[in-house]
Amino acid sequence: MAIEQWEQIISKKRAIRDKLLTPYLINVEDREAHVDNVHERSYVNDEVQAITDIDDVEVLLQRMQNGDFSAEQVVHAYIQRAVVAHQLTNCLTEVVFEDALQQAKQLDIEFQATHKIKGPLHGIPFTVKDQFNIKDVDTTLGYVGRSFNPAQQDAVLVRILKDMGAIVIAKTNLPQSIMWAETENPLWGLTTNPRNPAYSPGGSTGGEGSLLTLHGSLMGFGTDIGGSIRIPQSIAGLYGLKPSSSRFPYEGVPVSTEGQEHVPSAVGPMTRDLQSLSYITRLVTNARPWDSDPRCTPLPWNETTFAEIQTRPMVIGLIMDDGVVKVHPPIARALEELAVKLKSAGHEILVWDTSDHAACIELMDLYYTADGGEDIRRDVAAAGEPYIPHVEVLINRGKPISVYDYWQLNKRKFAAQKKYLDKWSAIRSPSGKPVDVLLGPTLPHTTVPHRKFRWVGYTKIWNFLDYPAVTFPVDKVRADRDKLATKDYTPRNALDEWNWNLYDAEKVVGYPMNLQVIGRKLEEEKVLGAATAIENVWKNHIAGHV
Amino acid sequence: MAIEQWEQIISKKRAIRDKLLTPYLINVEDREAHVDNVHERSYVNDEVQAITDIDDVEVLLQRMQNGDFSAEQVVHAYIQRAVVAHQLTNCLTEVVFEDALQQAKQLDIEFQATHKIKGPLHGIPFTVKDQFNIKDVDTTLGYVGRSFNPAQQDAVLVRILKDMGAIVIAKTNLPQSIMWAETENPLWGLTTNPRNPAYSPGGSTGGEGSLLTLHGSLMGFGTDIGGSIRIPQSIAGLYGLKPSSSRFPYEGVPVSTEGQEHVPSAVGPMTRDLQSLSYITRLVTNARPWDSDPRCTPLPWNETTFAEIQTRPMVIGLIMDDGVVKVHPPIARALEELAVKLKSAGHEILVWDTSDHAACIELMDLYYTADGGEDIRRDVAAAGEPYIPHVEVLINRGKPISVYDYWQLNKRKFAAQKKYLDKWSAIRSPSGKPVDVLLGPTLPHTTVPHRKFRWVGYTKIWNFLDYPAVTFPVDKVRADRDKLATKDYTPRNALDEWNWNLYDAEKVVGYPMNLQVIGRKLEEEKVLGAATAIENVWKNHIAGHV
Repeated sequence: MAIEQWEQIISKKRAIRDKLLTPYLINVEDREAHVDNVHERSYVNDEVQAITDIDDVEVLLQRMQNGDFSAEQVVHAYIQRAVVAHQLTNCLTEVVFEDALQQAKQLDIEFQATHKIKGPLHGIPFTVKDQFNIKDVDTTLGYVGRSFNPAQQDAVLVRILKDMGAIVIAKTNLPQSIMWAETENPLWGLTTNPRNPAYSPGGSTGGEGSLLTLHGSLMGFGTDIGGSIRIPQSIAGLYGLKPSSSRFPYEGVPVSTEGQEHVPSAVGPMTRDLQSLSYITRLVTNARPWDSDPRCTPLPWNETTFAEIQTRPMVIGLIMDDGVVKVHPPIARALEELAVKLKSAGHEILVWDTSDHAACIELMDLYYTADGGEDIRRDVAAAGEPYIPHVEVLINRGKPISVYDYWQLNKRKFAAQKKYLDKWSAIRSPSGKPVDVLLGPTLPHTTVPHRKFRWVGYTKIWNFLDYPAVTFPVDKVRADRDKLATKDYTPRNALDEWNWNLYDAEKVVGYPMNLQVIGRKLEEEKVLGAATAIENVWKNHIAGHV
Repeated sequence: MAIEQWEQIISKKRAIRDKLLTPYLINVEDREAHVDNVHERSYVNDEVQAITDIDDVEVLLQRMQNGDFSAEQVVHAYIQRAVVAHQLTNCLTEVVFEDALQQAKQLDIEFQATHKIKGPLHGIPFTVKDQFNIKDVDTTLGYVGRSFNPAQQDAVLVRILKDMGAIVIAKTNLPQSIMWAETENPLWGLTTNPRNPAYSPGGSTGGEGSLLTLHGSLMGFGTDIGGSIRIPQSIAGLYGLKPSSSRFPYEGVPVSTEGQEHVPSAVGPMTRDLQSLSYITRLVTNARPWDSDPRCTPLPWNETTFAEIQTRPMVIGLIMDDGVVKVHPPIARALEELAVKLKSAGHEILVWDTSDHAACIELMDLYYTADGGEDIRRDVAAAGEPYIPHVEVLINRGKPISVYDYWQLNKRKFAAQKKYLDKWSAIRSPSGKPVDVLLGPTLPHTTVPHRKFRWVGYTKIWNFLDYPAVTFPVDKVRADRDKLATKDYTPRNALDEWNWNLYDAEKVVGYPMNLQVIGRKLEEEKVLGAATAIENVWKNHIAGHV
């Protein structure tokens, strides 16, 4: 059996990476995965732990500014823990450790000389989905055929972050074609869930999700065209923002089906706390990305909007069910509990009508295959690796349509967006106020075994509308409250049945659950402010329980 | 010879319109067109003249608020003068005089009762290109096949203006398919230039241009995908703003090749003075159009930006030539004179590099025919009227491309937009400042005979980039200074030769010339503020001459 050329490329790519990882490898053989041991599982040593257990970007920055840690110490610690995370979940693709350490040393030299930090992200390590260009590094998108073709310059976002002092240490795994909610490709293999290798970390930015869960990164950046930032962060019980597509710069970020701009993919941040998510969004939007990316809207951060919504009763549209796939009982339970607490805290809650979601999603799915799968087919054919099953189904799903029909699709899309906007603009709370934000599930389930993802309608609807959405954790599945019988529910359709059958309370006890706060187009400040207020209500609720 | 059905429809449509015009017709047989008699040519009577000679919207509003004129008087005056304008140039399509008068009477009743105006456009008459939906009225786009299919509701913009008290009186002519810089279609016929019926008023919003020139409207609204607002206003020597496409609401405005959103058409205002252009833009952007149109950016008017640029030296990139078609001598002369005056007033002038314009325009032309002309062909086939020559050429220019190739086109477009933005972001003036705005020609010529338009590269480049652009008059062709010999120039290409041969100084003496101020995406306040400052410099210059 001859070894195919694509297999040789894979071997070569992995060997290069693995050689760079070698100095940092430790013995992890005994570290079995459990739902509640992600913290210990990626332990390196106490110093590394002390640095990498700080979730808040600003706190770590302050510690560096105080002289508690040097940038080199911080970057080195993150590299070490990132490698352990990779050993446990196969989350890294390209690594740039040497460059990162060099940059950190340079920062330290300057800091010692001037006592001034370089910028508001001085020495902060970050990672990116293997989709963001880093000069002289491949951007594979998980395609074998994109190997050994390094980027000529940094993506605009990478450059903005570096200018503020941040240091990129690695790129992370994603699925072949990107168009899939899990994380697997022939080039880099399968990324697993840090809590259970039989479970998916979600996707498409699943490498970031696993890495952040295991504290191998402090800031991650992904892209999201159907939930690809929010899904892995929901599975991880962490934080992610999918902004409106024109808010963060996409320049220098190659993507699958590139040029399809009508259901837009968005770049966004992924963090381990909500404070950091707002901090990074404020910094990036204030860095004038519109000077470097023609797609960006010239809209600096609006601090007033962000602060104002945190100081008053909000009107919240509550999404319990999208009418297609019912969420698993723990998610419904957490949402209901939170709604009660929000009401007690003085907020107004309206049940949000989702009867139009199914039609919107049916429409948006037509875009992904408008080219009959040609874009993805070409990328796979470039080296000739096999398809992963989901991608094979996707590219064979539809025949190419004509440009004229494509334009008709756009007309239908605008009509649907208009209808949705009218619904939002028309509704008033009992006290006569308009709806500020929506609150709902991120996924209809917590983590699931590999290749079991089927319904991402709770996330992708907001891509269709280009509305910003924040995902944030609220609770874990609880043995005492979530062991509901699942037999007495008659599913509405095959997808609903599939999802309902995935629920096994025993197996998911302790797994995190995320919710989503959604705003209207370009209201990133509002959703981040609302999520902050809502998380505070929830935290007080949890504190009351203890 | 049987009368075709499409001919019957045309007769019927025109008969309906003409019946509504009848009460207002006057004898205009003796009113020959001259370059300098537009004011007298549309004279009705002294009262009508007193009202309709006020160019500034706010001044007319103030006069109504003072009780000098009732809304009914104002609307009635504009209807009368609009009809004369139509008799002279064939600029009206659908008229809604009765509704307009009813609304005016209602406003007067309310004003008498409350002494309060309805809003900041109380009683202000306006007109729209026959592309904006008005409830119960046809939106023909100049297609016979769209006759007798009235709109079910007002366009969002029409509704916004009405809510402020404005009153729509009529719709105006446009070319078949809209994709043409003149104004002719089989349904409504040819619209002529008020200064000379052998000359074109430009297009595609040419009906508005002629109507505004003859004071038959105070505010017009058009759409612009290649210059369709700016070209007729340039020919007319009046004012027009093409905003970035997401600034004014497009909802409820059907368009040719609808769904093609990559070279976006934009809705914008057309006025008889610059003050009114800024006033209307301020009102519309502050009316939260994003609550009703999902395509709109939530960006209220920024008064600070508008005011700030008027109070300091600007850095202006000067476009003298786009490298493809050289402008006629009077336009070059006016630009040079203005540049000198701007320098004397303390502004910095840089020569702007346009070497990339030709490639951008070549690329954008591929979008218009990406469907192989199917969209336009279907609309024409619906009733079966003949093509106007330009449209026939357009729809046969290219074969349809695949959606995959369409996506590749988008990638090329973004790369070109990025390059342009980088150029702008990188350049610094001698004093080290970035470029505020660009200043250049609107057209390479003043008015030309019908069917002679060939090059609109000075306007369409800003559609490709989605940059806002204001056109405003600076001067007229002057017998003493613009009689330059044209023989000593060797054209660079066939288009350049065509344009150069159109120049005949004798024939265009006295015709207005417009320039354009251009800003970056969504910088409408900046371009309007800069145009205001520049116009003041020019006016002082002219005043100095007198």
